[in-house]
Amino acid sequence: MTAPEGFKASARRAGFKESNDLDLALLLAPDGAVCCGTFTESFVRASCIDLSQKRLRETGGRVRAVMINSGQANACTGDAGSEANLLATQVVAEKLGLKPQEVLINSTGVIGVPIPMHKLLKAIDPLIEALNENGGSNAAKAILTTDLVQKECALKADLGGQIVRIGGMAKGSGMIHPNMATMLAYLTCDAAIPENIWRPMVKRAVEKSFNSISVDGDTSTNDTFLAFNAGKDLDKKYWNSLENGLLELTKYLAKAIARDGEGANILLEVNVVGTNSDHDALLIARTIVSSSLVKAALNGCDPNWGRIIAAAGRAGVSFRSEEVCLWFGPYQLLSNGQPIQYDCETVKEYMKLCMKGDYLESDCVLIRLSIGKGSGSARAWGCDLSEKYVRINADYTT
Amino acid sequence: MTAPEGFKASARRAGFKESNDLDLALLLAPDGAVCCGTFTESFVRASCIDLSQKRLRETGGRVRAVMINSGQANACTGDAGSEANLLATQVVAEKLGLKPQEVLINSTGVIGVPIPMHKLLKAIDPLIEALNENGGSNAAKAILTTDLVQKECALKADLGGQIVRIGGMAKGSGMIHPNMATMLAYLTCDAAIPENIWRPMVKRAVEKSFNSISVDGDTSTNDTFLAFNAGKDLDKKYWNSLENGLLELTKYLAKAIARDGEGANILLEVNVVGTNSDHDALLIARTIVSSSLVKAALNGCDPNWGRIIAAAGRAGVSFRSEEVCLWFGPYQLLSNGQPIQYDCETVKEYMKLCMKGDYLESDCVLIRLSIGKGSGSARAWGCDLSEKYVRINADYTT
Repeated sequence: MTAPEGFKASARRAGFKESNDLDLALLLAPDGAVCCGTFTESFVRASCIDLSQKRLRETGGRVRAVMINSGQANACTGDAGSEANLLATQVVAEKLGLKPQEVLINSTGVIGVPIPMHKLLKAIDPLIEALNENGGSNAAKAILTTDLVQKECALKADLGGQIVRIGGMAKGSGMIHPNMATMLAYLTCDAAIPENIWRPMVKRAVEKSFNSISVDGDTSTNDTFLAFNAGKDLDKKYWNSLENGLLELTKYLAKAIARDGEGANILLEVNVVGTNSDHDALLIARTIVSSSLVKAALNGCDPNWGRIIAAAGRAGVSFRSEEVCLWFGPYQLLSNGQPIQYDCETVKEYMKLCMKGDYLESDCVLIRLSIGKGSGSARAWGCDLSEKYVRINADYTT
Repeated sequence: MTAPEGFKASARRAGFKESNDLDLALLLAPDGAVCCGTFTESFVRASCIDLSQKRLRETGGRVRAVMINSGQANACTGDAGSEANLLATQVVAEKLGLKPQEVLINSTGVIGVPIPMHKLLKAIDPLIEALNENGGSNAAKAILTTDLVQKECALKADLGGQIVRIGGMAKGSGMIHPNMATMLAYLTCDAAIPENIWRPMVKRAVEKSFNSISVDGDTSTNDTFLAFNAGKDLDKKYWNSLENGLLELTKYLAKAIARDGEGANILLEVNVVGTNSDHDALLIARTIVSSSLVKAALNGCDPNWGRIIAAAGRAGVSFRSEEVCLWFGPYQLLSNGQPIQYDCETVKEYMKLCMKGDYLESDCVLIRLSIGKGSGSARAWGCDLSEKYVRINADYTT
């Protein structure tokens, strides 16, 4: 997060978690920063979501800082929850010399539990003091909940002599645990892009990354993605290159979330081609990676193509099953809607190698589906459904 | 199925399954019967679905018989599959003295595998010979695949001096295994109802029964429900009573399917009230019973209300979370969107009693959600997600 010039971050242990882990993070963007965000589409939303959207709208994206706590989602906490957000951001703004409107707050943790404000208020001073240009990695640690691994990434490019850096961090573990709410992700960029260009650019990247993954199909009350830029203006002719960078970085983070899905053993990539539009392909790819039956078959390294095309068939996209072709990695299983001769053991072996990490050409099981003659295509990512997932989620709050 | 007067059924072991179980069933309705059906909405459909819909349309519902095989879904089997259906129904029609258009065929089993026609053709003669007025129970056995229990039911009522009987059978086990395709269900009734009344009557019952259950959210290539009536005309003023009977019977069968979901230990009933329409309530109830996280929590007897309202929030129905109230059985956990004091151990104990079958007031865990002041309401049924579900589905075809 702090690889791009001018961005600072810090993290503290405020005591929100029972463990001794970091649980409070702060990100500060340079003066003049532009920020845009995408948020959960659930009708049950934490009040920090409403506050963030309101402030981004009111300031036209002129937001400078975001504070993130992990341990309590502060969702379904009524007026007390909203007031806590107002107070917390006001204190941070004052100490940073900003307006409250320029500061956002995000939370992740158990729904229905408010942020312990005495702990938070006590941690703000040292958190701000700790802000520095190498703080990104600690911040990436502090936002984790049940994640097993830290998720961060940075890219650098020379765009016509201007060195441009982008950085990012994320947490997830389930695409969501609506209870240990949330997928959170953040991006920073040290080239200045006008808000009206930045917003659609970020939206397109999110569509092909965070909106293309699923761990368990559930959506949280607190899902948030924020993307900041600040720095020297970038020549228009490099905007496309920058967008490619945004896409690579967000895809990396999204795949890291899917790979670290609860109880997951293997990343699944589904590539759908031949639809009338990219959106249709995405609907199908997402339905496949979200299917419990497909995910359970993946867990057992079972190349169960019937479940895959059955999932495709219920995605709401019209196609002719007589045109469907399907591959597992390099192996074709289905041609024009009908099974063809293939060696099941060979395909199982491919899946097992992928799971062990011994398949050299890719780090995930790749399923490719061609469903027609259209030019639409999309990729989506998910993971297997394991007995461990059930164990983790069977007895969580109590 | 054969409780209503005039209906005959039979079953045989044709050898479609490796086990010694019955695997071929036939149902024959009396002369003058009216039939209507509802079918999978998947774009990947077995050819028997297309044939059934075509014949019901062409005959205006004047269909007399349906043959059902279990073991092979005969889906994704191309022209050979369609031709097998034409031949099989033609042979049955000839031997019964019917037109081919009056005979349907349904299949359930592994996708991509055709019906072994030599076995089928050999079994048709004895199957027809075995037709009798007590054959319903054997037919209900013959349509099962991985189901653990047989699902059948019959009701009788005196409607103004006319004794009316309805009967039904179903198979499911997963709401669907798209691979061991399918949910199949059948209903018979010995009061005559005109097709234009029967069709919407059946449709309303299906909406509140088979369309209100979910085991794993997956939809099959072969899902079929057929409802026959034949007999003495029923006075218009009793049509409502009959519809109530249809609803009770289809709900019984639907709940039996959810209860027998793969690896399931407990039936879940979700009752949503206070929406603007019944349809909105159904969308929310279905989303909750379909959530992997809700289902996993149920498995662990964990009253995790955060997951329930998070699932409600992504059902696509707008509501204000500040108005949500939530109960587990008799215990209220949430009032106006905020958690209230409750004894978690008591609620867990309630769930455990339900799971053991020791909770006398109901045979399922009941979750009630009031989300506003509207008059809409609906119920949906599902089951827990167990480690056994994953084991069953991890290694199925191979």
